[in-house]
Amino acid sequence: MSEQLEYTLYYWPGIPGRGEFVRLCFEAARVAYRDDTDIATFTKLVLNKDAPGIAAPHFAVPILGVRAVKDAGKTHYISQTPVILSFLAPRLGLLGDAAKLDGLERDVAVAQLHQLCATALDLNNEVHDTHHPISTSSYYEEQKDEAKKRAADFRAHRLPKFLQVFEVALRDNGAGLDEKKSGAARLWGTTTTVADLTLFQVVDGLLFAFPKCMQKLKVGGKYDHVFQLHDQVKAELKDYLESDRRQPYSNGVFRHYPELDDDVE
Amino acid sequence: MSEQLEYTLYYWPGIPGRGEFVRLCFEAARVAYRDDTDIATFTKLVLNKDAPGIAAPHFAVPILGVRAVKDAGKTHYISQTPVILSFLAPRLGLLGDAAKLDGLERDVAVAQLHQLCATALDLNNEVHDTHHPISTSSYYEEQKDEAKKRAADFRAHRLPKFLQVFEVALRDNGAGLDEKKSGAARLWGTTTTVADLTLFQVVDGLLFAFPKCMQKLKVGGKYDHVFQLHDQVKAELKDYLESDRRQPYSNGVFRHYPELDDDVE
Repeated sequence: MSEQLEYTLYYWPGIPGRGEFVRLCFEAARVAYRDDTDIATFTKLVLNKDAPGIAAPHFAVPILGVRAVKDAGKTHYISQTPVILSFLAPRLGLLGDAAKLDGLERDVAVAQLHQLCATALDLNNEVHDTHHPISTSSYYEEQKDEAKKRAADFRAHRLPKFLQVFEVALRDNGAGLDEKKSGAARLWGTTTTVADLTLFQVVDGLLFAFPKCMQKLKVGGKYDHVFQLHDQVKAELKDYLESDRRQPYSNGVFRHYPELDDDVE
Repeated sequence: MSEQLEYTLYYWPGIPGRGEFVRLCFEAARVAYRDDTDIATFTKLVLNKDAPGIAAPHFAVPILGVRAVKDAGKTHYISQTPVILSFLAPRLGLLGDAAKLDGLERDVAVAQLHQLCATALDLNNEVHDTHHPISTSSYYEEQKDEAKKRAADFRAHRLPKFLQVFEVALRDNGAGLDEKKSGAARLWGTTTTVADLTLFQVVDGLLFAFPKCMQKLKVGGKYDHVFQLHDQVKAELKDYLESDRRQPYSNGVFRHYPELDDDVE
């Protein structure tokens, strides 16, 4: 993996959305990337084929463009957030202590890191469905009644379940570290991995979309490690998060509709 | 990857569900695996930790147990369907022609194969949500009205969109093969890959759950390559599919509720 690569992230303009999971990897690793939010280019890439030989149609965005510097003519395109994260993590040094292992132990550790990413991305998808439970192509206002029901179930059942999984994962640390040795909330070993970044972004979005519900879940300390992970990654990414490269939440996956947050005062 | 491994698949008894995507990999590759559907073992694994060092809590099942024969004492556990497929594909020879490439070209090709798997698994998730649009922990009967709405949107918009993606992918073949050379509908190159198996299973489940809708979509030939892929993999897996190892569809992801299939006679 010593090849020098140029990266371009293609995604919708104006929202962090699923593009943010990829963006955070580059920002945390301090590796240069180009952010392309031109709608014409993006629309052309979606469902289009690249050069024959290593092409597949794109449907679930973002799309990552990858070009080897030594072979400047050819750009490869990869889509599907979890697949892009798997491709990037070893290249950007985001596998943490799992990268120090060998053979089967390494492959299992890497799989388990991506297992945690996949679960955080499942949570992200369930957040999306709280405001679009019936149809992704219709407006929220057209499915508001169903959204209220789905959001109530999400707050009462799904969200606590997911947070509990991550609380256990953070408390025990995948690398089996003694908590005092790890010194901070990390899902794996002693450095920030792709799984920590993915979980951070989902928790950050939840704090925007469901502020009242998240505040309630914070009280009692049941999910302390999850909130600690959020604070810690937030501090690590301070420069980026305060820059104008960070898009504000608005009408993407994470939306703040007070009526979906908590109806019990 | 020359280590000899023993595999166990842990999943719910009685339904093919998401366990089937993993099972098909072993069956297609004719590699031995143990099918463990003991509920007590399964429940213990979910949310539990394995030995420290390479552990993460499990939430999204199936779970794959992996043990190196030479080191018979230790079993590793991996969950999340797409992650298990990524772990198994190179070991079971299911990367097709992508495995013949090297370096960046290989990594991109493998990523694009898994991009197609991820999209097929997204479709699988959307099928689940047609009968459970509001709450996974409530009965279908409690969300039947919402299910009818979601299923109508699925049949009219989502399903055709997904089929179109796969039709393009199959028609053009990821490896850029001339259709006459590839000789059959494959997503990548000339042999059956993990992506073909994953797509087969989703289409097979759709034919069970939405027979009328799928019949309508078949007419006109717009998705001929998709149906051809289904027929072809079905023939390749004939022995397995006719064995008692293949679970019938019932109350899992793929359910046949006539009222969700097609309300227009």
